Amino acid sequence: MLKSPSQYQEMADPQVQPRYTGIATFFRAPFTEDLVQAEIGIIGVPFDGGVTNRSGTRLGPRAVRDQSTLLRTINTATGIAPFAIARVRDLGDCWIEKPFELQAAHQEISALYGQVIAAGVIPISVGGDHSISLPILRAVGAAHPVGLVQIDAHCDTGGDYMGSRFHHGAPFSRAVEEGLLDPKRTIQIGIRGTTNHPDLWRFSAESGMRILPMDELQDKGWRFAADEVLRVVGDGPVYLSFDIDAIDPAQAPGTGTPEAGGISIIDALRLLRAIRGIDFIGADLVEVSPPFDVGGITAFNAAAVLFEVLCLLTEAHQVRT
Amino acid sequence: MLKSPSQYQEMADPQVQPRYTGIATFFRAPFTEDLVQAEIGIIGVPFDGGVTNRSGTRLGPRAVRDQSTLLRTINTATGIAPFAIARVRDLGDCWIEKPFELQAAHQEISALYGQVIAAGVIPISVGGDHSISLPILRAVGAAHPVGLVQIDAHCDTGGDYMGSRFHHGAPFSRAVEEGLLDPKRTIQIGIRGTTNHPDLWRFSAESGMRILPMDELQDKGWRFAADEVLRVVGDGPVYLSFDIDAIDPAQAPGTGTPEAGGISIIDALRLLRAIRGIDFIGADLVEVSPPFDVGGITAFNAAAVLFEVLCLLTEAHQVRT
Amino acid sequence: MLKSPSQYQEMADPQVQPRYTGIATFFRAPFTEDLVQAEIGIIGVPFDGGVTNRSGTRLGPRAVRDQSTLLRTINTATGIAPFAIARVRDLGDCWIEKPFELQAAHQEISALYGQVIAAGVIPISVGGDHSISLPILRAVGAAHPVGLVQIDAHCDTGGDYMGSRFHHGAPFSRAVEEGLLDPKRTIQIGIRGTTNHPDLWRFSAESGMRILPMDELQDKGWRFAADEVLRVVGDGPVYLSFDIDAIDPAQAPGTGTPEAGGISIIDALRLLRAIRGIDFIGADLVEVSPPFDVGGITAFNAAAVLFEVLCLLTEAHQVRT
Amino acid sequence: MLKSPSQYQEMADPQVQPRYTGIATFFRAPFTEDLVQAEIGIIGVPFDGGVTNRSGTRLGPRAVRDQSTLLRTINTATGIAPFAIARVRDLGDCWIEKPFELQAAHQEISALYGQVIAAGVIPISVGGDHSISLPILRAVGAAHPVGLVQIDAHCDTGGDYMGSRFHHGAPFSRAVEEGLLDPKRTIQIGIRGTTNHPDLWRFSAESGMRILPMDELQDKGWRFAADEVLRVVGDGPVYLSFDIDAIDPAQAPGTGTPEAGGISIIDALRLLRAIRGIDFIGADLVEVSPPFDVGGITAFNAAAVLFEVLCLLTEAHQVRT
Amino acid sequence: MLKSPSQYQEMADPQVQPRYTGIATFFRAPFTEDLVQAEIGIIGVPFDGGVTNRSGTRLGPRAVRDQSTLLRTINTATGIAPFAIARVRDLGDCWIEKPFELQAAHQEISALYGQVIAAGVIPISVGGDHSISLPILRAVGAAHPVGLVQIDAHCDTGGDYMGSRFHHGAPFSRAVEEGLLDPKRTIQIGIRGTTNHPDLWRFSAESGMRILPMDELQDKGWRFAADEVLRVVGDGPVYLSFDIDAIDPAQAPGTGTPEAGGISIIDALRLLRAIRGIDFIGADLVEVSPPFDVGGITAFNAAAVLFEVLCLLTEAHQVRT
Amino acid sequence: MLKSPSQYQEMADPQVQPRYTGIATFFRAPFTEDLVQAEIGIIGVPFDGGVTNRSGTRLGPRAVRDQSTLLRTINTATGIAPFAIARVRDLGDCWIEKPFELQAAHQEISALYGQVIAAGVIPISVGGDHSISLPILRAVGAAHPVGLVQIDAHCDTGGDYMGSRFHHGAPFSRAVEEGLLDPKRTIQIGIRGTTNHPDLWRFSAESGMRILPMDELQDKGWRFAADEVLRVVGDGPVYLSFDIDAIDPAQAPGTGTPEAGGISIIDALRLLRAIRGIDFIGADLVEVSPPFDVGGITAFNAAAVLFEVLCLLTEAHQVRT
Repeated sequence: MLKSPSQYQEMADPQVQPRYTGIATFFRAPFTEDLVQAEIGIIGVPFDGGVTNRSGTRLGPRAVRDQSTLLRTINTATGIAPFAIARVRDLGDCWIEKPFELQAAHQEISALYGQVIAAGVIPISVGGDHSISLPILRAVGAAHPVGLVQIDAHCDTGGDYMGSRFHHGAPFSRAVEEGLLDPKRTIQIGIRGTTNHPDLWRFSAESGMRILPMDELQDKGWRFAADEVLRVVGDGPVYLSFDIDAIDPAQAPGTGTPEAGGISIIDALRLLRAIRGIDFIGADLVEVSPPFDVGGITAFNAAAVLFEVLCLLTEAHQVRT
Repeated sequence: MLKSPSQYQEMADPQVQPRYTGIATFFRAPFTEDLVQAEIGIIGVPFDGGVTNRSGTRLGPRAVRDQSTLLRTINTATGIAPFAIARVRDLGDCWIEKPFELQAAHQEISALYGQVIAAGVIPISVGGDHSISLPILRAVGAAHPVGLVQIDAHCDTGGDYMGSRFHHGAPFSRAVEEGLLDPKRTIQIGIRGTTNHPDLWRFSAESGMRILPMDELQDKGWRFAADEVLRVVGDGPVYLSFDIDAIDPAQAPGTGTPEAGGISIIDALRLLRAIRGIDFIGADLVEVSPPFDVGGITAFNAAAVLFEVLCLLTEAHQVRT
Repeated sequence: MLKSPSQYQEMADPQVQPRYTGIATFFRAPFTEDLVQAEIGIIGVPFDGGVTNRSGTRLGPRAVRDQSTLLRTINTATGIAPFAIARVRDLGDCWIEKPFELQAAHQEISALYGQVIAAGVIPISVGGDHSISLPILRAVGAAHPVGLVQIDAHCDTGGDYMGSRFHHGAPFSRAVEEGLLDPKRTIQIGIRGTTNHPDLWRFSAESGMRILPMDELQDKGWRFAADEVLRVVGDGPVYLSFDIDAIDPAQAPGTGTPEAGGISIIDALRLLRAIRGIDFIGADLVEVSPPFDVGGITAFNAAAVLFEVLCLLTEAHQVRT
Repeated sequence: MLKSPSQYQEMADPQVQPRYTGIATFFRAPFTEDLVQAEIGIIGVPFDGGVTNRSGTRLGPRAVRDQSTLLRTINTATGIAPFAIARVRDLGDCWIEKPFELQAAHQEISALYGQVIAAGVIPISVGGDHSISLPILRAVGAAHPVGLVQIDAHCDTGGDYMGSRFHHGAPFSRAVEEGLLDPKRTIQIGIRGTTNHPDLWRFSAESGMRILPMDELQDKGWRFAADEVLRVVGDGPVYLSFDIDAIDPAQAPGTGTPEAGGISIIDALRLLRAIRGIDFIGADLVEVSPPFDVGGITAFNAAAVLFEVLCLLTEAHQVRT
Repeated sequence: MLKSPSQYQEMADPQVQPRYTGIATFFRAPFTEDLVQAEIGIIGVPFDGGVTNRSGTRLGPRAVRDQSTLLRTINTATGIAPFAIARVRDLGDCWIEKPFELQAAHQEISALYGQVIAAGVIPISVGGDHSISLPILRAVGAAHPVGLVQIDAHCDTGGDYMGSRFHHGAPFSRAVEEGLLDPKRTIQIGIRGTTNHPDLWRFSAESGMRILPMDELQDKGWRFAADEVLRVVGDGPVYLSFDIDAIDPAQAPGTGTPEAGGISIIDALRLLRAIRGIDFIGADLVEVSPPFDVGGITAFNAAAVLFEVLCLLTEAHQVRT
Repeated sequence: MLKSPSQYQEMADPQVQPRYTGIATFFRAPFTEDLVQAEIGIIGVPFDGGVTNRSGTRLGPRAVRDQSTLLRTINTATGIAPFAIARVRDLGDCWIEKPFELQAAHQEISALYGQVIAAGVIPISVGGDHSISLPILRAVGAAHPVGLVQIDAHCDTGGDYMGSRFHHGAPFSRAVEEGLLDPKRTIQIGIRGTTNHPDLWRFSAESGMRILPMDELQDKGWRFAADEVLRVVGDGPVYLSFDIDAIDPAQAPGTGTPEAGGISIIDALRLLRAIRGIDFIGADLVEVSPPFDVGGITAFNAAAVLFEVLCLLTEAHQVRT
């Protein structure tokens, strides 16, 4: 402090200030509540009211912020320097005044993202549970249905659960039904695990989504998956949703519904780096549950994923402008 | 298995079977869903939909069951052998089919406890968050308002929170308003910490509850507190509610809203042993949040508290029958 | 509770009751001590008296039970729904009345499994240390020597240790000597690490067992290993023994004798899925040591393995009946 | 975000925004680098270059920030509402550009605090190791020697260590020598443990400091200690230095040089509440080492201490203005 | 290394070498297997074959060694400098070649201690489970029955367990029966918890031991307890046995059979300091189980206890010589 | 103890003494400060004064010693038995008397290693941070520049940091500049992550070092990497430096500057086994930071790496003699 006004170049540079210092914002980017300052806005959505099993993702944004301070500014694998080509800001957390009412909370989220989109800010969200993707898509996909790249252990295209149409296992079936998402331009990668119904993810198949299960991913590799992504989503605007439970539980134990035998973090990072060129208009990283984390490894790997996501969205923004 | 039919005497006796063996029920008591078999029924209520800060108590019942297997059958301080004087059963967990709807979930809880009370079973509940005390009291206090011994860091007699009248900070104000609880026969012990409103617990004072703050407890001791309990609750039926956040956070870190400087576990145990003779008709132990626990110490100390509670309720049952 | 009599279909269905609720039995299957009710019996064997280094597996069954509640009922990779095609029961834990006497404890285990086999129940055991495989095989292999699929970091065909012929490093040499196991139909997968004797596992080689070391597995892949399994064990009855230390220590830290660089859990699961069709008549999962576990990851991955094992044995049972 | 401009009243009020949300600043107070905005400035000093044993306190400020969000705004024991009576701000972390050079780093710290004092801001510092008290005192005590209330397991008035006059075991001997501290108005509370030299703390005794060892504190109680504090420091300006290793290691394991049998956190909090009225002009809380912490308990208790310290300094400020 | 030959004065002095350096011996005392070099020998007994519940104490000696390096050389409370007045050595660990046979292992322990006693070395043992006290007493009490100061949550004067006369719950009943221990000169402090038999500790009472339960200790204080110790053991030779489960589980979670509400570590340390003058001829510290420890707090507090025990035995040795 | 004089054959043989017993030296090799006794000397260098981010590696040697006791004596993959072909000794820790002065500490390290080299002992060092490689190379490379096999997430050939030419991110640029290292015979494997400067590792490229990034390693495999190593380093003397942060953070969380997506431990071990035949004359294993470790997995995997390193250096020694 006091040396000079904070500037993001400096904040993110450990040569100026070591990484363990300072307020923990996402990647030590400047915090602002003024949308005008941001081109890319990273927003915490500390809501886990849509969880069906183990909760805790309300603490996700803070944990990812903390671990993200371990990262630096340039992606050595691709050379991208996101903070140098766009104004990246930490916009703080979405206010949710009705945490006890799932649908009311979703409306609050949608309202905020409506403002963000209206201001021309590209939102990258850190959850929270996966149910938040639906209200975000209500803003992001309001004009016309978007494509989706979803990396996840579960399709999350379920039906009702416990009498609720809305929960963290069904954001994308609802999003298709609401005309926010184009299932033909949707790909779901890393699907695996046990279920209680043989047709739990029938909606994905019937609506034309491309399911790329974990076994196919392991057999054919991340390069194949990247090609499939590019083929499926095509040219229009695309949303990216990364559920941390896609990653193997040893590398991401801090999540509510782990499934054994997931994507290795290195494959996930390389897959993300291989889908540059897509017209990404928004993204989220969800289901980091710090109370179940071990040594911060989940939040740390989530931060590494978030950095790749940031690079993708920054590049897409650069292309558009 | 296979040696002989399970009998609770044997299940709880490590001379027959070591304590690390077998299915983890509460105190290794027999599990049954048949209310006729039980005089005292220990019931898990894995619900944390009323939490205002950090969640996780939905996992409380399972963790307390696990640690409770470390205990044995006779209270050496008092000589009470609860399993020898009453049929104690683990009745499993309360089914909550609408976990996303706070009030609907409360109704489900009330319905179950209505059955339990109707069957003449004395319920000891393991939460879950403190909001469950209200629907339990709707059954336990249905006939006439009961007295209350509450050991807790917070009075939990708040007003609305985030637009909801029902949450884990307000069960007892609601219970008084609904005529379930007699505030004049209510004592709240261990209150401390910070608040956001100077009159957050005004309801307690204005309705005539006896607040015995942590400082007074430390100054005057647990024997004084026990005397106050006996004086306040008098002769009628009394409910006991033990919030684990009453205990010092070093001895009970696994809870959602810890407050520094709490009751030591030994004082809590001795306080409970010193209030024998009260006509207890039900009890709960709430707010154990395993995801925040460390080495199981919270659930272990909670199990020790639960054993004392069991002794109190068994004795009260014995007096009545 | 109280909604209806427990039925395994319901217990294992989170749409009826969330997975964090209820008594923690294996996969939330019904607990019974009545062998008549079971076709497949999952049995805990909380014994670690045969351990040569770090103990703690006596707590294994309880931890695996707890983590197994995170799983559901249908194997999405294979479509198998084990609970729908066989009566799967949690039979509780094997009573061991002489925990201080290794051979006496082994006799108790053998006696129980004799009863289980006599009742026509297929046993799946959760240890406990690997020494328990011997007394189990004394029942399972009593009629004639069985084949063995062993997934493990160690061959466990050692000689005497500290003056004892029986310990967790030698069950299978003893089993061959006792005529319970056919070494020609035995395959050992994942072997690696350091030893103190160049010929520690000589028994394996000399008796004709197929050793498939970790390096060969990594080089040739799990599909090759599966083919080798099918080739080696052939058509007769086969026992399956899965030592969790086969898995890489980052995915299975909770074990007594870890060896760096193990099988990845995804390869292990796929290997198991690829050996369908074998006439499995019994299985065990051993060496889960919860005191050394981190965040429950070992027990969680063990539960995922156990589910695959359950599928294999359920299918084999279905074929036979 | 976006609801309204941040205001500290709102930021710190969970009725407006739950405590688990938002950027983690100290007590969720507004972050600013503009000294004009602050009356009380809480400053992180992430420096542990003066540690003689186990390091890690460079991560202290961030951990205390995180846990401090669990607290609210009003001290229920005293009724003080610090955020309502003074502009409390999180001023971020002190920049230390030469972390490899102990004395150069100290000069950087002194320079910053010179600015803070010149701006009329009352500094509350969160370390970092105890060596930081010296450069802070070089600013705070520049005009004339101040009194000191030190709560600590060690006197920290040592001589040279490993050839260095400056380290975390000697700030106060150096401060006296430099004329910053009045030893006659200094009291050291909680001293205990083992040493390597019988006269390690001779400087304290010979310079006239009042040493109040742990045993005396336990025998005579915190009220006596508070009286001693008031007697020793008298009327002039006083600095408060709280080393978290004063607290018992079970309540504060996350520190570099723990000593068994320390002050209980409740006694520490009550002692602090009992020394109101002193003319405090600055304070620090040091030696929180998150890598050695368990479940965040050290940082949580440190936050509770920090809140009391904040109340003391806010009140003193109020008296002076 | 290489600076000069190791000498214990230097090894234990962090001014010469920081405490985090070097091989972890007990208090960084020199390691030797040559009994002639030692007056006081600290010996690890890594045996937990007598445990009835949770094992793990075989790892106790190594963990206590590690944490003991945090201590220094002079007891500031008493001024005793044990390393300056006696040759204290780490004698390594007792060899136990028959870990699977309880009684054979006990014979090996007795044989070693016979040699130690014959060489005139005063043994301080670090377990290991409490069953080791019996074979140690067979050497220490061989000449005539000794007195006993036992600090423990359990009397450990039980009968048979699971068909074995020897286990960690019965060393002292066996020792009295074998004429090694004088029950009239025995005091047991800190007893509490649950039992399965009302007369589990009848042997203590009937043989004339003084049982000082936890409640009496809390009521009357450690000074009273110290007076009782001095009164009971009188003038003859006395053995000291400290079971770490005497300490409250929050301060000593790493033990196999914890009991809620134990002695605070500060009271334990002060009690030990208050019984100087007794003719101690041997001591043990048992039941530290590192796999259940949290952040090393149990081993750390055990090391602090061990230091006080070392002071007591060093002083007693000085008096005798 | 006392059975017979310690001999390393026996110490490392669990058939004689279980692995959990005894003083924790590296691989339970004999501890000596007498250089004459050693051919291969394993030396701890507990220094982390060159760390730019999270510290803690000063505790690395002790943690690696502890976990190394889990290993045995023969490498089953290669058949090498290092303790049988060379006198391997634990030489204790390097004394660093000026821990507060980076360059002075480095001089102390260089001085020690000068003695070690002069005595003809091959040093294997366990750090400590990576800055220690420079002062070690000042001894090892004193005669003429050596080749280097570096396995690491970072090139560590940086420029100044915070005004210091010497830190853990720059040992090898300094070593080249000082003529200790031949950059043409240097290969750096596993490089990845983010940076703050596009040309942070320019020194590596410009000086002619072979950088083999993580992505290339994953694409081409460890066998290719091994071939590259052999090709690059050629025939002369070579130093091996293994930074544990090369390994994936799930398998090595205990390090100060983790980078997501690292080398799997099995690939690392096999890579090491595949570079036999090189004329290794020294090696180090650095950056193990136990305070950030989880369940000891980092130190355990580090011990496995250290064992392979020991095999390589023992074989090279055998070839030379």
